[in-house]
Amino acid sequence: MDKQQICPRFEKAVSILSKRWTALIIFQLLKGAQRFCQIESGIGISGRVLSDHLKMLEKEGIVSRKVYDETPVRIEYSLTEKGRDLEATLREIQKWAEKWVDPPDEGAESARNISMEK
Amino acid sequence: MDKQQICPRFEKAVSILSKRWTALIIFQLLKGAQRFCQIESGIGISGRVLSDHLKMLEKEGIVSRKVYDETPVRIEYSLTEKGRDLEATLREIQKWAEKWVDPPDEGAESARNISMEK
Repeated sequence: MDKQQICPRFEKAVSILSKRWTALIIFQLLKGAQRFCQIESGIGISGRVLSDHLKMLEKEGIVSRKVYDETPVRIEYSLTEKGRDLEATLREIQKWAEKWVDPPDEGAESARNISMEK
Repeated sequence: MDKQQICPRFEKAVSILSKRWTALIIFQLLKGAQRFCQIESGIGISGRVLSDHLKMLEKEGIVSRKVYDETPVRIEYSLTEKGRDLEATLREIQKWAEKWVDPPDEGAESARNISMEK
């Protein structure tokens, strides 16, 4: 592994993933293209925060925004190939976190719920 | 995926990985237990920064520090099971980054973007 080459790319990747909500938005869009309000209610994020994240993800080439010329105009967000390609990475982080990271304080209960879900 | 339960653990995992040098230290220790100076020269990190990162990784249960009662005293750092378990995650992030993130020296523009974000 070449530290000079890998390090900045790796850091860039992690810096995208480390933004709060990013992973949840990507997980949500892995289900398919969705309108703004569907993502909003699907993950319980505020409109303002979702808007900022979608702009960032669009700029990074992870999400694409498509406008359908209907009345009223329909706008859908979906993952690009670069975005869909993050699925394996997100699943690995999630697997590790579920195995090794203690749930937050209110969490003895959540821990049980998570293991039951799987 | 339950947003209320997964999110804090996921964020914790990413916050550990997002620390500068963390991934490189873990990659280095995947080769086996090493002394401080071996890690230092192996990845070209300053002693002070390495020391801070090792303390953080020890606190997170990812790295363990073993003191051998020899003369002079020998101290070795190695990955715990929790640390070794990060390998798959790191490889996935690396694979994605190599495929999708522009290396900084391939274009002044990308380089600027990356360095500006740091």
